[in-house]
Amino acid sequence: MNQIQRLFDIDPWKISTTTLDTTHRRLQESLTAIGNGYMGMRGNFEEHYSGDHHLGTYFAGVWYPDKTRVGWWKNGYPDYFGKVINGVNFIAVDLKVNDTDIDLAKIPYEDFYLELDMQGGILNRSFTVTVDAAKVRFSFQRFLSIVKKELGAIKITAEVLEGAANITMTSKLDSAVTNEDSNYDERFWEELAAGQETEFDYLTVRTIPNNFGIERFTLTAAMKHNASGTYHKEHLQVSKTFTWSLTAGETCELIKEVLVVTSRDVLPEEQVATIKGLYQDYGHDYEALKAEQIAAWGKRWELADVTIEGNPAAQQGIRFNLFQLFATYYGEDERLNIGPKGFTGEKYGGATYWDTEAYAVPLYLALAEPDVTKNLLKYRHNQLPGAHINAQRQGLKGALYPMVTFTGVECHNEWEITFEEIHRNGAIAYAIYNYTNYTGDESYLAQEGLEVLVEIARFWADRVHYSKAKDRYMIHGVTGPNEYENNVNNNWYTNTIATWVLRYTLENYRKFAASTTVALTPEEEAKWEDIIAKMYYPKDEDLGIFVQHDTFLDKDLMPVTDLNPSDLPLNQNWSWDKILRSCFIKQADVLQGLYFFRDDYTKEELRRNFEFYEPMTVHESSLSACIHAILAADLGLEEKALEMYERTARLDLDNYNNDTEDGLHITSMTGSWLAIVQGFAQMKTAQGKLSFAPFVPQGWDSYSFHINYRGRLLFIQVTKNAVRLELVSGEALELGLYDETITLKDEFLLQR
Amino acid sequence: MNQIQRLFDIDPWKISTTTLDTTHRRLQESLTAIGNGYMGMRGNFEEHYSGDHHLGTYFAGVWYPDKTRVGWWKNGYPDYFGKVINGVNFIAVDLKVNDTDIDLAKIPYEDFYLELDMQGGILNRSFTVTVDAAKVRFSFQRFLSIVKKELGAIKITAEVLEGAANITMTSKLDSAVTNEDSNYDERFWEELAAGQETEFDYLTVRTIPNNFGIERFTLTAAMKHNASGTYHKEHLQVSKTFTWSLTAGETCELIKEVLVVTSRDVLPEEQVATIKGLYQDYGHDYEALKAEQIAAWGKRWELADVTIEGNPAAQQGIRFNLFQLFATYYGEDERLNIGPKGFTGEKYGGATYWDTEAYAVPLYLALAEPDVTKNLLKYRHNQLPGAHINAQRQGLKGALYPMVTFTGVECHNEWEITFEEIHRNGAIAYAIYNYTNYTGDESYLAQEGLEVLVEIARFWADRVHYSKAKDRYMIHGVTGPNEYENNVNNNWYTNTIATWVLRYTLENYRKFAASTTVALTPEEEAKWEDIIAKMYYPKDEDLGIFVQHDTFLDKDLMPVTDLNPSDLPLNQNWSWDKILRSCFIKQADVLQGLYFFRDDYTKEELRRNFEFYEPMTVHESSLSACIHAILAADLGLEEKALEMYERTARLDLDNYNNDTEDGLHITSMTGSWLAIVQGFAQMKTAQGKLSFAPFVPQGWDSYSFHINYRGRLLFIQVTKNAVRLELVSGEALELGLYDETITLKDEFLLQR
Repeated sequence: MNQIQRLFDIDPWKISTTTLDTTHRRLQESLTAIGNGYMGMRGNFEEHYSGDHHLGTYFAGVWYPDKTRVGWWKNGYPDYFGKVINGVNFIAVDLKVNDTDIDLAKIPYEDFYLELDMQGGILNRSFTVTVDAAKVRFSFQRFLSIVKKELGAIKITAEVLEGAANITMTSKLDSAVTNEDSNYDERFWEELAAGQETEFDYLTVRTIPNNFGIERFTLTAAMKHNASGTYHKEHLQVSKTFTWSLTAGETCELIKEVLVVTSRDVLPEEQVATIKGLYQDYGHDYEALKAEQIAAWGKRWELADVTIEGNPAAQQGIRFNLFQLFATYYGEDERLNIGPKGFTGEKYGGATYWDTEAYAVPLYLALAEPDVTKNLLKYRHNQLPGAHINAQRQGLKGALYPMVTFTGVECHNEWEITFEEIHRNGAIAYAIYNYTNYTGDESYLAQEGLEVLVEIARFWADRVHYSKAKDRYMIHGVTGPNEYENNVNNNWYTNTIATWVLRYTLENYRKFAASTTVALTPEEEAKWEDIIAKMYYPKDEDLGIFVQHDTFLDKDLMPVTDLNPSDLPLNQNWSWDKILRSCFIKQADVLQGLYFFRDDYTKEELRRNFEFYEPMTVHESSLSACIHAILAADLGLEEKALEMYERTARLDLDNYNNDTEDGLHITSMTGSWLAIVQGFAQMKTAQGKLSFAPFVPQGWDSYSFHINYRGRLLFIQVTKNAVRLELVSGEALELGLYDETITLKDEFLLQR
Repeated sequence: MNQIQRLFDIDPWKISTTTLDTTHRRLQESLTAIGNGYMGMRGNFEEHYSGDHHLGTYFAGVWYPDKTRVGWWKNGYPDYFGKVINGVNFIAVDLKVNDTDIDLAKIPYEDFYLELDMQGGILNRSFTVTVDAAKVRFSFQRFLSIVKKELGAIKITAEVLEGAANITMTSKLDSAVTNEDSNYDERFWEELAAGQETEFDYLTVRTIPNNFGIERFTLTAAMKHNASGTYHKEHLQVSKTFTWSLTAGETCELIKEVLVVTSRDVLPEEQVATIKGLYQDYGHDYEALKAEQIAAWGKRWELADVTIEGNPAAQQGIRFNLFQLFATYYGEDERLNIGPKGFTGEKYGGATYWDTEAYAVPLYLALAEPDVTKNLLKYRHNQLPGAHINAQRQGLKGALYPMVTFTGVECHNEWEITFEEIHRNGAIAYAIYNYTNYTGDESYLAQEGLEVLVEIARFWADRVHYSKAKDRYMIHGVTGPNEYENNVNNNWYTNTIATWVLRYTLENYRKFAASTTVALTPEEEAKWEDIIAKMYYPKDEDLGIFVQHDTFLDKDLMPVTDLNPSDLPLNQNWSWDKILRSCFIKQADVLQGLYFFRDDYTKEELRRNFEFYEPMTVHESSLSACIHAILAADLGLEEKALEMYERTARLDLDNYNNDTEDGLHITSMTGSWLAIVQGFAQMKTAQGKLSFAPFVPQGWDSYSFHINYRGRLLFIQVTKNAVRLELVSGEALELGLYDETITLKDEFLLQR
């Protein structure tokens, strides 16, 4: 097993520590990131910190097309790698005591405390320094309002405990920032304007030009303080300096209220005026703004919280996951999607992966209004023109949704991913099914949904080839969900979901024939029928399993437990060559298909495949553990399900894959919720029928959660001896509980 | 078929044209490149030319490790992509008539003539311009001496035909040059010194620092003129300006004698003094230097020339190939090897590919003294430590020779090539066999050869895996010679050559057990024996063919003739994805194995495989056509053999693959010679027995060539009615001619 690394204390609602870990400062920063769906930042310090760290503040939908660099160009490579860009660092407040810079990498300190309060979305920090004869305690508090999206607020307090001291605080708006992974080491911002208004200072910046016709973004950040200071101006930076002379027992306090607007919402020339108006509307009462923030998070938790009794680490994990997920996306802006690192890092680029459809949709269906999920679906419908371009670039018909994108056009740059990991196209379609099945609302499917489905189906129908040798349709040259195999033939998952798309599309095309505007030719229908009838699925009759892809069984097969633990994670210890040749599986692949299409397979089929594949799976994708937790639960493998839950719930908190310093695995934050709800509680929804078959994992006393379901709000509480179902609101509902069907009117208690 | 593009006239000894093709200037530049093994350049103009072109002068073994840029880093990727770098442009002589710059992209001209004289290695050019009332004819001649390697000589003549004119010539040494494909758009040179000595001007430059511990090269270029001029100095550049005032009928002439030394041979601090000495030694008689050059090329042609009667295009092709090959490498410097673009372009990088062992060694064995080939083998022996590093980086034992290198350490950066195209390791071993078998000299094999073989064998023994499912050893995750397939399993060619290496190494290890210093453990020997016995070779009994790799037959198989001609070349018209999935083959793959191990297979096996694979082969590698020509000849498919000959002989002259603008395909320049000698003449050498079975291809009257063989010089002349063998020097020799065995004493004539 991988070594876990735990920097923060176990606490049901807090991520806290009394240690500044200078060696793993990046990891600390990732884990103390905050966001409000509109903007967010890593857990950087306000004051300058000269030790190794990664400064990063990001704004949803503000990006740059960084010209692709690859070894040798191949036809069809995307022109650019789209990147969420590091924007204005607006938390910056440099500190001095007398003439000494307060830089925790350079001066001694004591009583360090750092705390992310997830209940209210507040980040707190404090430490004490002794400079000359003065002992000063600094305290910091900041939040990004989920009520007033443009607002970030910071409060810094300095209390002189002993002696006397001059305290200087220099508060900044700083766009002289870069992305760590830019291809040409470029600064992506240029300054447009800066200055002082009566009440605030501001800085307006614009993304540099690009050659790809991509929109240039203009952003204005403003800061207002509760004190008067001296204004300074440097290139890409404005600052204001405040000074206090204090003696023992005295305290000074700087409140910095930041507003940021971008050209996504406000015309560049109107940004300063808009900010002026927002300052008036939003007011300047820090404590009131904070109370509002706490109340708003409280409301989110009321619906979304999952309580776990008996295992505080598990409790902390699921709350951390939900907090960071909602800090990234809460469905307010249909132009946005869920980036893989949210506002917590720069790796991966792009705004959208198939993760959204495969892993996030089920959670948002249950924990938000249907419109939130519908917005996620519409996002893909809006990007259909881009998806056409992707298919055309490969010389294929229909639409190929991108692996990574902002606009619908592919913007990643590894051929084995962009050209080959096309199973993603199936997940886009599956989400349409998922939404329709869960909500019972067919309106999207019948209109936009069918437009998307037909184009995806057309892609598959052109992408398959007919093998005369086997009298079967095949899909060669793909990368399945298991990215530790590239360019394989007949990945069972890909073939399965491709055929499913064709079948589901045909069914619904015929169902909505009267109303839909899309039109298939008879030849197309016939071709699709033929592919459905003659698709090739690799399987092994002796082993009773579906084979991940052709020739997989020829490998040197062995369980992960036969490896030397020091080899893990493989992606950090083995050459890519060795990984590709090995039997080890990065994430659920055949099992991903059995999860999606659970009803089409028997429990015995599931068991044989799970027992065959799981032991070879290293779970080095953040998306792996939750699927295994759910399937293990389905099979009654409670111990394995719990192991997988812990891995998904505490993936970042315990740094399982030794890569959280780059940022959190935002899109997999849904995994722990899925593991509890679809795993331990075994919630199923196929064919529009809701059912549960809960168990309490070993070491837990109980757990509980709410779900929205077809206009109802349900509360489910599972203890060792009982399952309690409560219909909090909405009409009575028929549902399955273990092998029974019950009608839930208000409350139902099953004693065991 | 691909469209051919022919810019130059057909002539047995010349590459000439009266057209300056501004649209395809780069292609013209590639085809008029010259070199002397030590340095070389594209066919750039002396005077400034502002149209699209590619300026490039290169010095053998002078390179820079350009930091690798790839999409996402994977373990084992090389740190840098080693590049032959564009060095000092020493041919530069800017021209003016009165105040008008002579820039053929901007001013009108007439009587343009451009000619590469291959007989003497001389490049000639002339054109006439009219400026104001003056009509001036400029003539240019240049050569790079193959006798005095540091010497390049240029003669420029301006003759005023009408009117009167001031002629200005500004002669330069210019290192303010870049590589077109540098990863960071860096200039790779910094200036160390520059100045005027009594007789010459000089510029000393050094490659910029690098982070990879790679040697920095210092180069001094000097120029001496036959006239006095005015010296100028700019950064990275020295120049001298000469002026003449001429009237009609008058002529001026500038002779520029350039010397270049590098730190590969001369310490930086001694370079200027060395050049001073060389100027004294070499003298300043342009015509004498030129005569010497022509004589030296004459001597080369005496041995190497292949004459073809009846087909001037074919004649021109083979001479162009031999000229450009020898301009790149003539075996003088054992530290060098044969770069894929020689001195004619920048693409591919590196100095050494498997091309040398697979395609160049057979030619140098026949057309040079054995020591030249031995030097090529020693080059690899010297790089054994680097090859160990490559294997270690993949987590494997033994030695893996690199795909691209200067030092033995891999310096390319596509995983599907560097990690996977490991069949190259077999070619290194095969060249040892080839040398030993051809020359009969076992001394290299017994010593250095065995050291190399054992390490390559150890790599293979570790790289295979045992498949329980098939009770066979397999090699998964490779790229075969056909690079239009990546990451395939059990490439027949790779499996075949890997097993051959194990067998050949074991045999010779045992043969030379008494003398060798290498030692195998009994376990190693047993393991190797087991692999040899149980290697898996994909084949299809029904079709009677070896299968290129697992699942190849599941593809949608079709001949190239079924494609729309506008799709060719595929690599410029199809996405990489589509190419990978298709059945189309870039170059000989199974057939490469049948070529190498011809004796192990029946003619019927060869025929079935040839007939199966050749129709699917697009020959988009320059290395493909020659192998097909040889095998077609072997099968009596004379028409196909001739088609393939023309394709290899005129690959660049007719720009078959639409990529010669990037530079010539130097390592495949041996292909036309192989096609004639091993193809049409069917020379075979296996088991130390020389034989011929010649035919004259359709449309040719006759052909003839010389070969060195085991201390003899043979001349072979083939006409439609007769084969004439002449023992020019050396002892009598027994050889096969068709089905007969003859003893050649002086001359043997077989009438047919």
